[in-house]
Amino acid sequence: MSIDQDLEYDLPMDRLEESEPQCPFGTAGSCCRICYMGPCRVSDGEQGMERGVCGASPGTVAARNLYREIAAGTASHADHAREIAEVLEEIADGDLSDYDVREPEKLRTIAEDLGLDSSGSDTAVAKRVSKAAIEDFQDGNGETLNWMERMPAEQREHLSAQGIQPQESVDKEVARAMHRTTQGNDAEPAHLLTGGLEAGLADGYAGLTMGTDLQDVVFGTPKPVKTTANLGVMEEDQVNIAVHGHSPVLSEMVIKYADELEAKAEEAGAEGINVVGICCTGNELAERQGVPLAAHSSQAELAVTTGALDAMVADIQCIWPGIGDIVECHHTRLITTVDYVNIPGAEHVSFEPETAESDAKEIVERAIEAFGDRHTRQDYAVEIPETPREALVGVSDDFVLEVLTAANPESPAQPIVDALAEGHLKGIVGIVGCPNPKLRRAEMTEHLIEDLLAHDVLPVVTGCIGHITAQAGYLDPAMTDELAGEGLSAVLHDLGAAAGLDGPLPPVWHMGSCVDNSRIGNIVRAISEDSGVPTRELPVVASAPELIAEKAISIGTWALALGLPLHTAPTLHMEDSEEVTHILTEALKDITGGYAIQEENPEAAAVAIRSALDERREALFGEA
Amino acid sequence: MSIDQDLEYDLPMDRLEESEPQCPFGTAGSCCRICYMGPCRVSDGEQGMERGVCGASPGTVAARNLYREIAAGTASHADHAREIAEVLEEIADGDLSDYDVREPEKLRTIAEDLGLDSSGSDTAVAKRVSKAAIEDFQDGNGETLNWMERMPAEQREHLSAQGIQPQESVDKEVARAMHRTTQGNDAEPAHLLTGGLEAGLADGYAGLTMGTDLQDVVFGTPKPVKTTANLGVMEEDQVNIAVHGHSPVLSEMVIKYADELEAKAEEAGAEGINVVGICCTGNELAERQGVPLAAHSSQAELAVTTGALDAMVADIQCIWPGIGDIVECHHTRLITTVDYVNIPGAEHVSFEPETAESDAKEIVERAIEAFGDRHTRQDYAVEIPETPREALVGVSDDFVLEVLTAANPESPAQPIVDALAEGHLKGIVGIVGCPNPKLRRAEMTEHLIEDLLAHDVLPVVTGCIGHITAQAGYLDPAMTDELAGEGLSAVLHDLGAAAGLDGPLPPVWHMGSCVDNSRIGNIVRAISEDSGVPTRELPVVASAPELIAEKAISIGTWALALGLPLHTAPTLHMEDSEEVTHILTEALKDITGGYAIQEENPEAAAVAIRSALDERREALFGEA
Repeated sequence: MSIDQDLEYDLPMDRLEESEPQCPFGTAGSCCRICYMGPCRVSDGEQGMERGVCGASPGTVAARNLYREIAAGTASHADHAREIAEVLEEIADGDLSDYDVREPEKLRTIAEDLGLDSSGSDTAVAKRVSKAAIEDFQDGNGETLNWMERMPAEQREHLSAQGIQPQESVDKEVARAMHRTTQGNDAEPAHLLTGGLEAGLADGYAGLTMGTDLQDVVFGTPKPVKTTANLGVMEEDQVNIAVHGHSPVLSEMVIKYADELEAKAEEAGAEGINVVGICCTGNELAERQGVPLAAHSSQAELAVTTGALDAMVADIQCIWPGIGDIVECHHTRLITTVDYVNIPGAEHVSFEPETAESDAKEIVERAIEAFGDRHTRQDYAVEIPETPREALVGVSDDFVLEVLTAANPESPAQPIVDALAEGHLKGIVGIVGCPNPKLRRAEMTEHLIEDLLAHDVLPVVTGCIGHITAQAGYLDPAMTDELAGEGLSAVLHDLGAAAGLDGPLPPVWHMGSCVDNSRIGNIVRAISEDSGVPTRELPVVASAPELIAEKAISIGTWALALGLPLHTAPTLHMEDSEEVTHILTEALKDITGGYAIQEENPEAAAVAIRSALDERREALFGEA
Repeated sequence: MSIDQDLEYDLPMDRLEESEPQCPFGTAGSCCRICYMGPCRVSDGEQGMERGVCGASPGTVAARNLYREIAAGTASHADHAREIAEVLEEIADGDLSDYDVREPEKLRTIAEDLGLDSSGSDTAVAKRVSKAAIEDFQDGNGETLNWMERMPAEQREHLSAQGIQPQESVDKEVARAMHRTTQGNDAEPAHLLTGGLEAGLADGYAGLTMGTDLQDVVFGTPKPVKTTANLGVMEEDQVNIAVHGHSPVLSEMVIKYADELEAKAEEAGAEGINVVGICCTGNELAERQGVPLAAHSSQAELAVTTGALDAMVADIQCIWPGIGDIVECHHTRLITTVDYVNIPGAEHVSFEPETAESDAKEIVERAIEAFGDRHTRQDYAVEIPETPREALVGVSDDFVLEVLTAANPESPAQPIVDALAEGHLKGIVGIVGCPNPKLRRAEMTEHLIEDLLAHDVLPVVTGCIGHITAQAGYLDPAMTDELAGEGLSAVLHDLGAAAGLDGPLPPVWHMGSCVDNSRIGNIVRAISEDSGVPTRELPVVASAPELIAEKAISIGTWALALGLPLHTAPTLHMEDSEEVTHILTEALKDITGGYAIQEENPEAAAVAIRSALDERREALFGEA
């Protein structure tokens, strides 16, 4: 990497190099820092003690650490879902002027799925649905989460028959996880990891699914829309505002009020205001509004180095603190907006849905002001490096199921099942998560996906994998024939025709942000419920080929709870425990049907994923 | 340490030696394992990088780690308080036959302090109080915790004027902490540590204070009672049952039904059943029933090695998994009872308050069965090592305030304030927490306490420090004249006389278990509210001289929020961040009035604590 060789600051790849060699204990899950008798390094391998000072085994240590990773991810998605649940409640109460129910049909479908009364006004239904949502953050009713109703029923019963279901509140789930894993408490690896599965289910339903459900209700359900991707989407002569983070509650308002302040930008000498998206905020805006996908999370600092970025507006999650250092060397302003997230080097504008207009205008005005500051800086220079790539995004669950239903109303998923049975389609892989510099060096995601496509496996992507694939051109329908195998290509052409598109669907389907992994869950549910095949038998694999965040661990755990094989790279923090490795790669098959696949080499990962798919297809349909 | 030189297994001190040298990064707070780009070692010192791969500074890393430690401690005490809140609710609903409201007066006092109606039947008041308690685990009302009403009002307002107060639910507080500290989220050290203060307040009130309040209501308020301490309390010819963990909800029932099963024990050849206490369960039973204090948490394995222990019955927290290994070599049965806590090597009896009688009998019967198994083992031998020490325990806040009120009804705390002003009493130090093998080597607690006593400082103790001081003889009133300085000794004689005791109070006051740190908080509150001196100006220090558990970190944070100087050993995980060290040792003074003192040498720690007390006494009263 020579991109920063002339720069006075470090970029992610430099910092990764400085960090190496990284600690082998933390990497392998044998580091315990849970109490002040340690730190202890407890391993079944060569490198540590057999037992911690308290007597904890390698299995106890690794299982506790993993459970805490899951809990932190669940807590993150819960706060995300809580925000939109509270927005919907305020809409129902008539307290918000900037937000509305844009998808009353979807609201009613969700209400019915939750077992709620879906009759009456939009407001009445919104009130019931938001109440059910908010209940999922409150201990007390003694029953599991309302949003567990959105899980495939057969797998939900399969797990609850084994005593596996979340607590009555997702906050209690997280608090319980922290308590269970504290020193001298729960110590049995399998028991701890079962707790982790329950937290993963809470994440999948009261986090991801609730988040997507209610965001669609308020901001609209995505449909295919064209956009562009990479840092080339910035415009030298415009006020460039990058919205970064996760929640459309903020970024939809930045878009809205940027439009209103175009004249003000022109007064400041700009040709206009160009709002671009980073990380999952980028995905949220792209899938609903076609906003350009500027950068994934590990490229956010590079967006600043272009010199063209006037403001980076952040809400929650995946906003690396390195951005706070780098804006010191540029005219770019880093603006945080959520009161519980501060970043050194940022200025803060507290954003609240009740005052969305004034807050959003304040943010946009600061960006315009920064545009005016550009030439006051000695070091000011603009270098926008690339030509944007074309991408078709917004291939949502709703869109896909609508197309399938239109073609085959009796049994919408049948064409997919047929394609799997006939072997035209070898399987579906949800490829999700982050852009990890460790794996970026080998372009892990690109190599994995190209192999899968060539072998007729359909990749559906979310999160920063959405950015990587957009930048690689995989979301461009023009690439379908080049990249997809013969069988898959035919399927994509058929579906494109059924959808009334002017050509095939793109070889990789962009399903949105990380909470939109729920969309993949909904597709899996539809296929399972339509075909009668349990989710744990479907030829569907989840892969996080470059995971970074604890959120990826909780999402992956949800996939395991759904009964899917889960590929990850880097390897989960567990290699120093034979017991935890055995549980997650083998024993879990008899519990949820899911299991972990660890593989950091892209070619080997592709082979392992295809084998997992083949095994399931053969079990269902015989040799194809 | 030669105690285990003939044994085939390791004991805590051996494992500590094996663990050394321990990792300097984890120890100094510079190890970040929050995402899969790392682990990163980020330090302001010589030993690590300046920034993590994400750009996190040493301050970000250390503050996030500390905040998570606090959150885990808070989660632990919250679950403890939730259990007794649910028991009280079930009592009010008439659903329990083994539990009752034993202290209706205290129940009414608590109801009034919470601003609730205290009229009507005990059941009606219990219903209101339990409802207010359970509300503190439910997000939704938009207000802070009900139990914050139990905080000294002046300090509560001092903090809330600065925007510092807990969320509306303690579970949300914990979940929010986990979210804030995840990768790419809240990164500003001072902001993170303010979150930590809020979690510490949640711990102090919806954890500790609620726990003690409701346990006293259900099981009785402690009054001075004689007991004995150390492993010598076990009886060779009896069925020895050690109750270990934290909750009297279980252990009170073991006591009760052990009494009923004496005849069965005699049939099995035993002379009776001897229930002894380990860790905080020991403190709970000692302060209310005079049950012997067998061992602190790091001695629990030694209790097994005596060969006389038939069953160790565990509920939650501080039950080291090493016990599961060691019972494999003995006839002792390790019985876990709480469904979310399993330990390898244990058998499980699910204990529920609704079925307390049958569950407790099942547990006691297994112990009797184990007694019968003693002689079936080849390696069976009993060696009970010591003669028990005498101890007076149960010196509760209620008792102390009752004595003071009887002597001086107008202004109960005045004699304490006078003694401080005159210098007979140089200050009060709450010495709390764990027995850390690292500091046990130097007998940290004993040396610290002997110095403080000699200098007329009153130590009030809880938790496993209660065991250490009981074993050292410091809870024996016969030791008052020998250990206490002249001024303190006179105060202890005066109070003993005022209480109608046959001599002085002991030199060290045993205030109970770790949740009973709330009793120290109540004493501080009474002195502050009675004298009009804010808690942040009182000559009161908190010390955790041998801390182990994350719970000790949350308790200590609560003390900091109350405005107390906080001494800890080991040093908090922060030394590699100059910023975090500065915040906690200096900047915090201007926020809460509290600050951290780090000192692992007992003599130096005593000097530092006495200086902190002197500074406050002089500020209040001038040179004494």
